[in-house]
Amino acid sequence: MDKERLYLYDTTLRDGQQTQGVSFSTHEKVQIAQALDVLGVDYIEGGWPGANPTDSAFFDAAPQTRATMTAFGMTKRAGRSADNDDVLAAVMNAGTRAVCLVGKTHDFHVETALGITLAENTDNIARSVAHMVAQGREALFDAEHFFDGWKANRDYALECLHAAYDAGARWIVLCDTNGGTLPDEIERITAEVIAAGIPGDRLGIHCHNDTETAVAGSLAAVRAGARQIQGTLNGLGERCGNANLTALIPTLLLKEPYASRFETGITQDALQGLTQASRLLDEILNRVPTKQASYVGASAFAHKAGLHASAILKDPSTYEHIDPGLVGNTRIIPMSNQAGQSNLRRRLAEAGIEVVPGDAALARILDEIKQREDRGYTYDSAQASFELLARRELGQLPAFFEVKRYKVTVERRKNKYDKMVSLSEAVVVVKVDGEKKLSVSESMDDCGNDRGPVNALAKALAKDLGPYQAAIDDMRLVDFKVRITQGGTEAVTRVIIDSEDGQGRRWSTVGVSANIVDASFEALLDAITWKLSRDYGMTGAVA
Amino acid sequence: MDKERLYLYDTTLRDGQQTQGVSFSTHEKVQIAQALDVLGVDYIEGGWPGANPTDSAFFDAAPQTRATMTAFGMTKRAGRSADNDDVLAAVMNAGTRAVCLVGKTHDFHVETALGITLAENTDNIARSVAHMVAQGREALFDAEHFFDGWKANRDYALECLHAAYDAGARWIVLCDTNGGTLPDEIERITAEVIAAGIPGDRLGIHCHNDTETAVAGSLAAVRAGARQIQGTLNGLGERCGNANLTALIPTLLLKEPYASRFETGITQDALQGLTQASRLLDEILNRVPTKQASYVGASAFAHKAGLHASAILKDPSTYEHIDPGLVGNTRIIPMSNQAGQSNLRRRLAEAGIEVVPGDAALARILDEIKQREDRGYTYDSAQASFELLARRELGQLPAFFEVKRYKVTVERRKNKYDKMVSLSEAVVVVKVDGEKKLSVSESMDDCGNDRGPVNALAKALAKDLGPYQAAIDDMRLVDFKVRITQGGTEAVTRVIIDSEDGQGRRWSTVGVSANIVDASFEALLDAITWKLSRDYGMTGAVA
Repeated sequence: MDKERLYLYDTTLRDGQQTQGVSFSTHEKVQIAQALDVLGVDYIEGGWPGANPTDSAFFDAAPQTRATMTAFGMTKRAGRSADNDDVLAAVMNAGTRAVCLVGKTHDFHVETALGITLAENTDNIARSVAHMVAQGREALFDAEHFFDGWKANRDYALECLHAAYDAGARWIVLCDTNGGTLPDEIERITAEVIAAGIPGDRLGIHCHNDTETAVAGSLAAVRAGARQIQGTLNGLGERCGNANLTALIPTLLLKEPYASRFETGITQDALQGLTQASRLLDEILNRVPTKQASYVGASAFAHKAGLHASAILKDPSTYEHIDPGLVGNTRIIPMSNQAGQSNLRRRLAEAGIEVVPGDAALARILDEIKQREDRGYTYDSAQASFELLARRELGQLPAFFEVKRYKVTVERRKNKYDKMVSLSEAVVVVKVDGEKKLSVSESMDDCGNDRGPVNALAKALAKDLGPYQAAIDDMRLVDFKVRITQGGTEAVTRVIIDSEDGQGRRWSTVGVSANIVDASFEALLDAITWKLSRDYGMTGAVA
Repeated sequence: MDKERLYLYDTTLRDGQQTQGVSFSTHEKVQIAQALDVLGVDYIEGGWPGANPTDSAFFDAAPQTRATMTAFGMTKRAGRSADNDDVLAAVMNAGTRAVCLVGKTHDFHVETALGITLAENTDNIARSVAHMVAQGREALFDAEHFFDGWKANRDYALECLHAAYDAGARWIVLCDTNGGTLPDEIERITAEVIAAGIPGDRLGIHCHNDTETAVAGSLAAVRAGARQIQGTLNGLGERCGNANLTALIPTLLLKEPYASRFETGITQDALQGLTQASRLLDEILNRVPTKQASYVGASAFAHKAGLHASAILKDPSTYEHIDPGLVGNTRIIPMSNQAGQSNLRRRLAEAGIEVVPGDAALARILDEIKQREDRGYTYDSAQASFELLARRELGQLPAFFEVKRYKVTVERRKNKYDKMVSLSEAVVVVKVDGEKKLSVSESMDDCGNDRGPVNALAKALAKDLGPYQAAIDDMRLVDFKVRITQGGTEAVTRVIIDSEDGQGRRWSTVGVSANIVDASFEALLDAITWKLSRDYGMTGAVA
């Protein structure tokens, strides 16, 4: 039997941006769009051009994607033609292949929120969709508050859908805007809409998670016949979030009846990148990834109960509903040496470090990692620091240089123009090749702005490393993430630094301390040491 | 029509404790049990006496509850009688009114994990249940891996249920132990079990959230006829967690068809304590509450989209599926760059600041917020900083004190024992009541640990504020969040500080700077100023 095509529409960049505390920069939007495209979603809704400067800038700089880039907007306003609506014009001017316009379908909203007649609203929908189609765009209509509208005034809600459908909309998307509709109701109403003449392969579903059933609601609509699902990575979105594509995608690809019945744009290979895509988004947002997240969470395949863990060792299928590798996730079993050591050897091999099974260093490395993780370190992303830790235990890391001490001063006072200014200054003392070197740097950049104590410290540390200086000069810090792992000013601070060099290598290091400057210093030191170990090898000899 | 009774069974203290990183003390278990009892669940599963010292201690100290306190264990082992099984004896000895025993129903697990015959397993179930009943206990049977077992060997799975039922179990609980079963499958199989002779009012459902559908799966079982739901507060539990009672309870009480059809032990009054119960659990676990949580999350009724926010001002039902007050939650209209003056006036009114419509200060405040948001500030959560900004523009903020300058030193060097140690020192110079005051503090805590430069700075700033000192002394920092809003060491740092005082008030402030110490300083300063404005009012006069 041929599989039916099911389309995935991602709105992380639009509805996802409605999450409290989330606001993407243009560059971050580009990064996320690229990750979505690698994953294989069919549509990427990039934002609302004209409503938001970042969104407009994103469409100007939008990456070439296999996915259909889509601009979002709203149906034209009453009392003007689609041609003369400047809000609509800004959306069309983004020049995307597809355009999705939201419009009202609930009589209460038409009359209360818009204050226009029902007929005017229907006309706005029809003319806006016709306008998109006339300009050669793939047209999508987001039927706002559709389920509530259907319950309040079924005839009118249906009239709105038909207006869009008849005007040539490729997709009519049933939106549960307030998130209050339960899955069985979504299933029943979607089936009724199809029975009323809108074919299922032209229907999409857009759920919100206000009752924690957005994933189930989306599946219910698909069972009823809808063939497009709208959602976001990690379930970002207004209020409680949108339907979580990170949970939906593996269910659609791995679970029956969906796996046998439907085809999506996502391959089994791409599915293995799902965990990474989820973590990338959290990293961009500087959010702590949700450990309990379905499929991709760090705890999703963690077996804490003793009975579970021992059964898992006999056969993983005893307490796992899928193989974690299918979604790029990994199993966590409380440190039984057996499982721990073979896991560790695999990770070391990935870093190019071969250790024979049973080597005593393996237990020492595991122990060191466990102790450090208890203190707040994490080696999930800080692969370079993990590698240095292992090499140190294995006696494979030369002492390139030694930091004897450092001192950083942060000052804020009035300058000669009676304006408050701040400045930091760092002194670092290192010993390289038996020689002591003092370096000092300040935090002022070329424009005269204070860039803070970590900047001053990084500059001082990289200022004079004698014979190794050449390796340091082509290295730069590209990202700096700070996370507080306990409450209060007495919290422990974890700093993760991403570095890059002239050869395009990129690596991450971690530092932990109650003192944020010191945690940063530790991560900086690891970043430099990793670079030296790559450029000068295991002897530390300068060629 | 009389409503049918639906029972809620809470397993926060047992399955919830399987969450990675969670381990309750006896005292914490008592606190949680009391909160569950106030909420009105029917059963509280307290743990596995004998398997875990904390669980045994809890049953010894268990509070008197209206809810049926339940001990958990497993069916007796093969080759010995129920009387002679010491594991079962420890469970019975806890002396609870009800006992819940988990047993296998999946042939694969019986043969692979237990290594006994199918008949032996059935016998273990029957005799264990009979033993509980003979001792006058209410007997529950948790049918482990039931749905997978049913799919693999329907006859055998059913045989196990009948063994428990015939032996007198009050409840047979269908457990989706691995969490891989989707809601429609749960609904179908539950209906088939009822058709096969186990009445629905003797059936419970126990879902896990591995596909993010545990809430929907529980509702599906109830639709099919099951009358007991097992779950946990905040969805704690092994791997991705259990069915989330915090989401299920309001749906059952507020949404159709459940609200009209079923009665639970939870009153509408108790429902208003749901948000508080959820936050209490997070507080006990020292976890940051999930903002996006359905019903009880801080963002669950936060309206960020400009169009939503303006419609909410006309009628909250436009973008809210329930009144947030019903679950003890509150509406938030965040300060977004799209928000207009009416939104601002509403937010000011919430802070006790009345401004007449059209006041020129409104435009100035909006403009100031917009400019600051462009620089990285956020006022979504930093309500206290928002309030100070507004009061400043309105001329309603006295100059309590002035910071003339500060200086922080961060040092790392070898101590006399040749060990690397770090220390920070802060000097703050303020002018209060015309008098200049120098304060100095270091970052060492009572245990001799370096707590970092922000700690030293906070202590120095709060050391001597003259006549205002009394207000500062009962204030403490409870959370400290750092976010880098651009890449590189040249990033802009945003610090959000949560503070609390002796009266239980809690407030959030924000600071932004390229310099992390300076950003922290700004947030600290706002935190103190807000506290003074509350304690000393708009004149700043000390009574």
